Amino acid sequence: MTGSNRQMKLVAFLQACNSTNLPSAWRHPDAPLGFLTPEYYQELARILEAGKFHLAFFDDRLAMPGYGDGHDEPVRAGIRVIRLDLGSVLMMMAAVTTRLGLGATYSTTYHEPYHIARLFATLDLMSKGRAAWNIVTSVNDFEAANFGRDHHMELSLRYDRADEFVETVVGHWSTWADDALILDKVNNRFADPMKVRALEYSGQYCRSKGPFTVPRSQQGHPVLLQAGQSGRGSRFAARWAELQFVTNQTVDKGKAIYSAFKEAVREAGRDPDQTIVAQACYVIVGETEAIAQKKRALIESLAQPIDTLVMLSDRINIDLSTTDLDAPLSDAQLASFAQWHKLADSARADDGRNPSLRRMLSLSGRGTIAEFPVFCGSPDAVADQMEAWFSGRACDGFVLAATHTPGSYEDFARLVVPVLQKRGLLHEDYAGPTLRENLGLKRPERIER
Amino acid sequence: MTGSNRQMKLVAFLQACNSTNLPSAWRHPDAPLGFLTPEYYQELARILEAGKFHLAFFDDRLAMPGYGDGHDEPVRAGIRVIRLDLGSVLMMMAAVTTRLGLGATYSTTYHEPYHIARLFATLDLMSKGRAAWNIVTSVNDFEAANFGRDHHMELSLRYDRADEFVETVVGHWSTWADDALILDKVNNRFADPMKVRALEYSGQYCRSKGPFTVPRSQQGHPVLLQAGQSGRGSRFAARWAELQFVTNQTVDKGKAIYSAFKEAVREAGRDPDQTIVAQACYVIVGETEAIAQKKRALIESLAQPIDTLVMLSDRINIDLSTTDLDAPLSDAQLASFAQWHKLADSARADDGRNPSLRRMLSLSGRGTIAEFPVFCGSPDAVADQMEAWFSGRACDGFVLAATHTPGSYEDFARLVVPVLQKRGLLHEDYAGPTLRENLGLKRPERIER
Repeated sequence: MTGSNRQMKLVAFLQACNSTNLPSAWRHPDAPLGFLTPEYYQELARILEAGKFHLAFFDDRLAMPGYGDGHDEPVRAGIRVIRLDLGSVLMMMAAVTTRLGLGATYSTTYHEPYHIARLFATLDLMSKGRAAWNIVTSVNDFEAANFGRDHHMELSLRYDRADEFVETVVGHWSTWADDALILDKVNNRFADPMKVRALEYSGQYCRSKGPFTVPRSQQGHPVLLQAGQSGRGSRFAARWAELQFVTNQTVDKGKAIYSAFKEAVREAGRDPDQTIVAQACYVIVGETEAIAQKKRALIESLAQPIDTLVMLSDRINIDLSTTDLDAPLSDAQLASFAQWHKLADSARADDGRNPSLRRMLSLSGRGTIAEFPVFCGSPDAVADQMEAWFSGRACDGFVLAATHTPGSYEDFARLVVPVLQKRGLLHEDYAGPTLRENLGLKRPERIER
Repeated sequence: MTGSNRQMKLVAFLQACNSTNLPSAWRHPDAPLGFLTPEYYQELARILEAGKFHLAFFDDRLAMPGYGDGHDEPVRAGIRVIRLDLGSVLMMMAAVTTRLGLGATYSTTYHEPYHIARLFATLDLMSKGRAAWNIVTSVNDFEAANFGRDHHMELSLRYDRADEFVETVVGHWSTWADDALILDKVNNRFADPMKVRALEYSGQYCRSKGPFTVPRSQQGHPVLLQAGQSGRGSRFAARWAELQFVTNQTVDKGKAIYSAFKEAVREAGRDPDQTIVAQACYVIVGETEAIAQKKRALIESLAQPIDTLVMLSDRINIDLSTTDLDAPLSDAQLASFAQWHKLADSARADDGRNPSLRRMLSLSGRGTIAEFPVFCGSPDAVADQMEAWFSGRACDGFVLAATHTPGSYEDFARLVVPVLQKRGLLHEDYAGPTLRENLGLKRPERIER
């Protein structure tokens, strides 16, 4: 992953939802609305595999967004109100592909580790070593309410639980030796008891005994994805992430975060070259610059102000429906803007006053394509921008969000992928059948007793 | 489902495991050992669909069986030590079939209702209305230990929780009107907020708010399966089961249980004709009686005493490794033998003494084909036995356990299905694309606010 043979990794940022990351995606004239059918996801999988994407990964939320008194506005405008179970969708995609990696988000806050360990170990076997788990701790009170809790757990406690949770899951995944199965029918020797151990994990938040009931897969166990960017979240990511999502706005910011992450990984006792930093982006590509700009204008015209208000409320766990759009926010209000809190400083510098909600909505870009860097233009122009981030060590690859599906990915596969391949920046084909082989990640060792 | 057009329903009793219901199945010379691969389950699905089975259903257990100090004996002899996640396996089977119903067991004791509601609603959409949920409350302390509990919850509390759990799940499934989606891109009207309500369930064991994020499927929502046979379990089944599994040993017992169940359903305010009683059985069929008997002898020769000891320990949540095989059991010991407790009375009658463990093992049939009635013989002889149970109203159909897979189902589809069809006892083909259509069950109504 070092040196001149370094090639970028491509991840598709999917939602098993009525839209993409962009709430307005369902309103795009070219968007088919088959989000409740297997064919919709299977077509996406085929397009991504033909385009040599390393991984298709699904984001998630365990609740419908709310706004004001209830959910009427999100339902009316279709702001991510559909959310399917991801493991099920992933398997329909696994059935029609053989190389594409398949990742899903499951929360450590609202599940039990034994279930998640078994679910992902099975996804990994059924896909023949192509599964990945995106580890999240969830974000809002709507999710808590669906799972019988009054409030969402506080961030640092969530990550304390998450650490134990992942220790349990990876622990279970590491209890079968690769050669444990004997399968001798005549002598009635199914497996070697010396090569299957019970985990017997006992922590403050999680306990699970075992023995686990799923042997290891072709790639050992699923790849771990993470996106923690806060202080506590960064420490968690440094410890666990094999593929780390980042959402920086500039190459320079990206470079700083990249080197900090790799250093944190090293300090955590892991090999930084065995981690991949993938930068979120939108790509809008056309045969010419003019065609791309026309596509962009259409996409931007579809966004509604309510999209941004609902999406930001959902993310920061605060109902913004009653906040004055134009009055300066209080310091306490600003502090609650999650990762966007830091953006307030630059907004404040102009006149000394705190920014308004309207300004923060705009700065966050949430609900619009401005949330991530937009690589827009001709195939060469898009490739130039991606190369600048990649070669400048702001990332090892990209998480491509879609302005609409499958259009975004069809365009990218048809127009940009050949350019990246010609420049030697992207593999010509998959290295092998497992996700770890394609990502250049080593097969994890079994943990001895 | 009444009158002369009454036809039997066929359910395959599957395990996502290294064996069938019979622990020795993996030792059968004709059993391929592909239980960790999707192809194994996909081939099974194709065979069952070609054989016009209504439903393929997976049993489950959330732990490896134990014995004595640990798990060495089950691991060595392969006594159900592999257990995959069922939703994942089901979707691989859904991807290669279009009519076969697909059912999975998930426990109400160790999951949250929001998760199960979303999982099964998604399985139902991805299979286009073919999903079924087998509701269980789990059975032993090994399962509890995997989920961080000291002991398995007491039976009546488990069922109290299960009632609330199913109210929550079915409640979420009933919150979207069938015509809620508008999908008007131009006017930005995704769905009608008046047709999507939040459940807001709040009970003693379960709470979940909603709104749910999965619209209703082609069949409304998944079919509910159950197997409760105890007092509290029977009440639960009478309230919820659409397809009820029973494990009677004789036609007469079957008739009594059948009419009691239908009466209990009526008393619970439901239509008994909208429920299906399916009797567990093994079928061993050959072109001639002699061939069938030869197959049976081979199958019986593969069973090991340890199979029965481990399987019964697992089911009754007691380690039998230290119990004397030949001494009379105490009354307290006998009382712990779950549904097999009742069998002790007949065993005791001979000499007044309590039966020994050896006698109880034999009576339970656990771990051998004697656990369920065995319909063995020529195709006509097997059909005669099935017809006697079915026409005598001991059942509405059968849950066929396999002596080995896929052999048992291949034999049945090839030899017995044509005979049943010729007699008018089995459908010639599927009535439609959804499981409810094929089972003759009405589409459930949405529950109004």
